[in-house]
Amino acid sequence: NERYTNEIYRNANMPGVAVGLAWTYVGGDILFIEALLSKGKSELKLTGNLGEVMKESASTALTYIKANAEKIGILAEDLETKNVHIHIPEGAVPKDGPSAGITMMTAIASAYLGRKVKSHLAMTGEITLRGQVLPVGGIKEKVLAAKRAGIKEIILCYLNEKDVQEIEPAFIKGIKFVYVKTMQEVLDIAIT
Amino acid sequence: NERYTNEIYRNANMPGVAVGLAWTYVGGDILFIEALLSKGKSELKLTGNLGEVMKESASTALTYIKANAEKIGILAEDLETKNVHIHIPEGAVPKDGPSAGITMMTAIASAYLGRKVKSHLAMTGEITLRGQVLPVGGIKEKVLAAKRAGIKEIILCYLNEKDVQEIEPAFIKGIKFVYVKTMQEVLDIAIT
Amino acid sequence: NERYTNEIYRNANMPGVAVGLAWTYVGGDILFIEALLSKGKSELKLTGNLGEVMKESASTALTYIKANAEKIGILAEDLETKNVHIHIPEGAVPKDGPSAGITMMTAIASAYLGRKVKSHLAMTGEITLRGQVLPVGGIKEKVLAAKRAGIKEIILCYLNEKDVQEIEPAFIKGIKFVYVKTMQEVLDIAIT
Amino acid sequence: NERYTNEIYRNANMPGVAVGLAWTYVGGDILFIEALLSKGKSELKLTGNLGEVMKESASTALTYIKANAEKIGILAEDLETKNVHIHIPEGAVPKDGPSAGITMMTAIASAYLGRKVKSHLAMTGEITLRGQVLPVGGIKEKVLAAKRAGIKEIILCYLNEKDVQEIEPAFIKGIKFVYVKTMQEVLDIAIT
Amino acid sequence: NERYTNEIYRNANMPGVAVGLAWTYVGGDILFIEALLSKGKSELKLTGNLGEVMKESASTALTYIKANAEKIGILAEDLETKNVHIHIPEGAVPKDGPSAGITMMTAIASAYLGRKVKSHLAMTGEITLRGQVLPVGGIKEKVLAAKRAGIKEIILCYLNEKDVQEIEPAFIKGIKFVYVKTMQEVLDIAIT
Amino acid sequence: NERYTNEIYRNANMPGVAVGLAWTYVGGDILFIEALLSKGKSELKLTGNLGEVMKESASTALTYIKANAEKIGILAEDLETKNVHIHIPEGAVPKDGPSAGITMMTAIASAYLGRKVKSHLAMTGEITLRGQVLPVGGIKEKVLAAKRAGIKEIILCYLNEKDVQEIEPAFIKGIKFVYVKTMQEVLDIAIT
Ligand SMILES: [Ca+2]
Ligand SMILES: [Ca+2]
Ligand SMILES: [Ca+2]
Ligand SMILES: [Ca+2]
Ligand SMILES: [Ca+2]
Ligand SMILES: [Ca+2]
Ligand SMILES: [Ca+2]
Ligand SMILES: [Ca+2]
Ligand SMILES: [Ca+2]
Ligand SMILES: [Ca+2]
Ligand SMILES: [Ca+2]
Ligand SMILES: [Ca+2]
Repeated sequence: NERYTNEIYRNANMPGVAVGLAWTYVGGDILFIEALLSKGKSELKLTGNLGEVMKESASTALTYIKANAEKIGILAEDLETKNVHIHIPEGAVPKDGPSAGITMMTAIASAYLGRKVKSHLAMTGEITLRGQVLPVGGIKEKVLAAKRAGIKEIILCYLNEKDVQEIEPAFIKGIKFVYVKTMQEVLDIAIT
Repeated sequence: NERYTNEIYRNANMPGVAVGLAWTYVGGDILFIEALLSKGKSELKLTGNLGEVMKESASTALTYIKANAEKIGILAEDLETKNVHIHIPEGAVPKDGPSAGITMMTAIASAYLGRKVKSHLAMTGEITLRGQVLPVGGIKEKVLAAKRAGIKEIILCYLNEKDVQEIEPAFIKGIKFVYVKTMQEVLDIAIT
Repeated sequence: NERYTNEIYRNANMPGVAVGLAWTYVGGDILFIEALLSKGKSELKLTGNLGEVMKESASTALTYIKANAEKIGILAEDLETKNVHIHIPEGAVPKDGPSAGITMMTAIASAYLGRKVKSHLAMTGEITLRGQVLPVGGIKEKVLAAKRAGIKEIILCYLNEKDVQEIEPAFIKGIKFVYVKTMQEVLDIAIT
Repeated sequence: NERYTNEIYRNANMPGVAVGLAWTYVGGDILFIEALLSKGKSELKLTGNLGEVMKESASTALTYIKANAEKIGILAEDLETKNVHIHIPEGAVPKDGPSAGITMMTAIASAYLGRKVKSHLAMTGEITLRGQVLPVGGIKEKVLAAKRAGIKEIILCYLNEKDVQEIEPAFIKGIKFVYVKTMQEVLDIAIT
Repeated sequence: NERYTNEIYRNANMPGVAVGLAWTYVGGDILFIEALLSKGKSELKLTGNLGEVMKESASTALTYIKANAEKIGILAEDLETKNVHIHIPEGAVPKDGPSAGITMMTAIASAYLGRKVKSHLAMTGEITLRGQVLPVGGIKEKVLAAKRAGIKEIILCYLNEKDVQEIEPAFIKGIKFVYVKTMQEVLDIAIT
Repeated sequence: NERYTNEIYRNANMPGVAVGLAWTYVGGDILFIEALLSKGKSELKLTGNLGEVMKESASTALTYIKANAEKIGILAEDLETKNVHIHIPEGAVPKDGPSAGITMMTAIASAYLGRKVKSHLAMTGEITLRGQVLPVGGIKEKVLAAKRAGIKEIILCYLNEKDVQEIEPAFIKGIKFVYVKTMQEVLDIAIT
C-alpha cells in the first residue's frame, strides 16, 4: 500500500516520530514509532500490541536516555515531570522482537528534545544499556520494505553490513546506508 | 432491532456519548461509546467487555487529548482532577480492535468540553499519537449497520473512500460521508 | 427451596439490599445483592464468585452514582470517605452477565442513602453510563423464579415488555410489572 | 488421627482460634481457623492454600465486622491500626468453599476482642453482608468428623436442621446442636 | 556430595541461617534457609524457586514473629524499619510444601536477634499462627540426609516421634532428636 | 561469531558491565551483563528475556549488596537514591538459571562503585544471601565459549575445579582459573 505509507510518511514529520523496520510473517514492513510526552511522574506507557521483548526494549531505551540525558542534551527536569507514551500503529498487528530498539530510543529522544527526526530516514538495531548497537535479522526484507515506502537512508549496526552486501544492488539503488557502532552515533545522525 | 437502537439513539444525545461502527461475527453494528467524568486523579477506567487492542486504543486517545488539550480547548485543571470512565454497552458482547479509536477520542473530548457530539453522526477509524487517522476494515458492513440505525453522517479515513465507492449507491442514499486525514478534523466536525 | 428464600427475604429488608433476577443453568433464580459501606477511600470490593462482566457492571453502577450523586441525593463527602463492598451470596455458585446492573446500582444507592429498597420488589436490566436501562434475556425464567420467591413487583426495561406478554398470564397473576427507560426511574420506584 | 487433633485442640484455646468443619475428598474434617493481629493498616492476609471462594468469604467476614464493630464491641481504632492474618493449617491441603464463613468471622472477632472462643465448639455456615447465616452442604460428614475430634457443640444454620435429623442418632450422641439465623447469634454463642 | 555440603555448613554459621530438611524426588535433602535484613518498610522478599505453599509458610512465620516479638526479644523498631529477604539456594531446584515452616521462622528470628542458630542443628515442621508445631512427612528420608550432611541434632514435632522410631537405629546413631509441641520451644533450643 | 563478540568486548569496558558464562541449547555462550543506575527510589528493573530463576538471582544479588554495602565500599545514600536496571542482550534469546548470580552481583557493585570490572575476565557461579559462591553446571561448554571470545581469566566456585580438570588442557591453554568460596573474593578479584 505505497500511496498510504508514503502520504502518511510525508505528513508525520513531527518531534517524537521515528521510522523502524520490522520483519513480519508477510515479509518486511515499516513501523512508525510514536513517542508523546504528557505531564506526569516519569511513567512509560506502551501501546500498539507489543510483545514482551519489544516492551523490554522500550524500557531499556528509556533507562539509557535517563542515564545519558546530559550528554544527549535533555533536561533532567523534563525527565522527572513528564510521562512518555510510545505507540506503534497498527494496533491489530502483534509486534515483537528487539530490533526496534534504536528506533524507540530515537523517538523518545526526539520527543524530549522537541526536535524532529531527519526525514526519509529509517533504522533497525538492538540496543544495550552500555550504548552499543547490536545486529539484527531479516535485513533484506526490511531494506526492500523501506525502499517501497520511499525511505532514502537507513541506519544499521556495522555488523549488518555483510547482510546488505548480499542484496542485489539494483534493488537498493538510491538508498544510503549508514553503519554504526553506538547509540550515540544513531542520535547524532537521526536528530539534527 | 431498529426500534430499539433508534429510540436509544434519540435519547442519548448528551456530552460524552459518541456513536462508533463495529464489525462483528453477525455483521456490522453500531456502538454507543460513553465517557463519564468523576472527581479523581486522572485515572482511566474501561468497561464493556473490551479486548486488549481496544483498551490500548482508549489509552492512546487519552494521551493524545492530554498532549493537545490546549488546542482542543480542554482545561489542564480538568484533566488533572477528573477520572474518565469509558463504557461500551452491551456488556455481554466481547469487543476488540483498533477501529473505535476516533470514537473513543471524540467521546472523551466531548465529556471534558461538556459539549454534545453532533446528532445522527457515526464514525470509525484507528488513531495514532501523532494525530493521524488510519483506515480500517469492514466498511461495507459498518455503513449498512449505520444506515439501519438512522445515522445520517459518517466520518472515515480518506483512505477508506475507495471502500465506500464499492457499495451499491442505492444502499447508502441519504448518508453524507466525510473523509478525514487528522484527528483534529474529526473533533472539528463532531463537536460543534 | 421456597421456605428458605421467603424467610430470608422477609428478614433481609435493610438499606443496601436489593433483589435481582438471574438466569442460571438450572433456570431462573433470585439474587440478593448486598452493598455495605465502611470507612475508607472510595474503594469498590466485589465478592460472591462474580465473573468479569458482572464486576464491570458494578464498576459502571458506581461511576454513574458518583457522577449523579447530587441528583440522587447522596452526599459527596460520603462517596469520598466510604468503601463499598458488594457481595452476592451464594459464594459457591459462579455468577456473570450484565443483567444485574440496575440491581447493583439500586443496592449501592440504598446503602449511601441509608434508605431501604421497597419490599417484595425485584428487578433485572443492564445499565449504561448515560443513564439508560437496556433489555436483557431470560425474562420468562426470571419472572417465574421471582413469583416462586414471593416477589410482587418487577422492574424491567420497557423493551422487555414483549417478553412478559409471551408468558401465560395465569403464571404471573398478582405480579405488577413496571417498565422503565432510565436508571433514575428505577431509583425513584425502588427507594422510597 | 484422633490423638493428634484432640491434643492440638486442647492446647489451642487462645483468642483468634475457631474450629470449622470442612468436607474434603476423604470425607469430613475439622479446620482450625487462626486469626492473628499485628500492627498495620487494616490489611487482610490469607494463607493455608485457600481457594478464591474461601478468600472472598474471609473478605466478606471482615467487612461485616468493620461495619458492625460498635455493636460487636470492637474498637474502631483497633480496626484501623491492626492487620489481620488468617491462616488455616495444614498448608499442603487445598481448601475452598463458602462454608467456613461463620468460623472465619468468629476467629476475626475473637482476635479483635481478645476473648477466647468457647471450647469444644465447632461451626459451619456461609455468611452474608447483611448478617444472615446460610445453609451449607456435607453436614453428615462434617458432624461425624467433629464427633471424632471431641467436639461437644456445633453451630449450624437453622435450615440445616433437617440434614442433622437424617443422621443416625447414636452417631451424634452427646453433641449439642445450635441452629441460628444470624451472624450476631453465632458471636453471642461462640464468644463468651 | 558430602564434602560440598559439609564444608558449606561449617562456613555458614552466621545469624539468619538455619538448616531445614526437605523431601525431594531424589530423596531427602538439607536446605540452607537464609534470612537477611536490609533497611526498608517491613517487606518480605522470597527467592529460591519457592512454591505457593512454601511462600505462605514464610508469611505465616513472619506474622507469628511480629505478634510475639516482645516475648522473643525482638525490638518493635527493627520490625518496622527493616525488610526481610529469605532465600533458599539452590535456585534451579523447585521447592514447596509446609515443612520448612519452623526453619524459616528460626532463620527470621535469628536475623532480627543478631544471634546465630546452634551449629550442627537441623529441623522440619509445619507452623501455625497460634504457635504450635505440626507433624510433617518424609521423616526417614530427611533424617538420613541430615546424617549424611553431618547434622548432630534434629528438631521435630512430637507427633513425628513414631516416624523416627521406625528407622533402623544404626542409621541414626549419634543424632540427638528433640521433639517439640510449640514454636517457642524451637526458638529456645535453636537460638542460644 | 568471534569478530563480533571480541570487538564488542573491547569497547564495553565501562563501570556496570561484567561478563558471564551461560549454557544454552546451542552450547556455551558469553553474556554481557549490564547494570545502569538512574535517579530513583532503589527499584530494580530487569530486562533481556530473563526467566524467573535468573530474576530471583538478581534480586538476591541486590539484597546482598545492600546488606554489605559498607564493607564493599558503597555509599548508603547511593543505594537509596538510585534505581538499578540490569539488562542482558540479546533480547530475542530466553535466558534462565542461577549461574549468572556472581556476574550480576559484580555488575551491580561495579555500577555503584563507579569502577570498571577487570578486562578479559568472565565468571559463573550461583550466589547466596550469606555470601558463599555455589558450584554450577555446564563448565566445559562455558569455558570453551569464553576461550573463543578472548577471555583470559575465569572465576569459578572452588567446587567446580574438578570440572575444569576434566577438560583437555590444550583447549584452555592461556586461561587463568581462579577458584573462590565467597562473594567477597569475587568482588576483590573483579573490581580493582
Ligand atoms: Ca504496515
Ligand atoms: Ca531493541
Ligand atoms: Ca447491538
Ligand atoms: Ca483505535
Ligand atoms: Ca438460589
Ligand atoms: Ca449490568
Ligand atoms: Ca486434618
Ligand atoms: Ca463462607
Ligand atoms: Ca542439595
Ligand atoms: Ca511451613
Ligand atoms: Ca551470543
Ligand atoms: Ca545466580
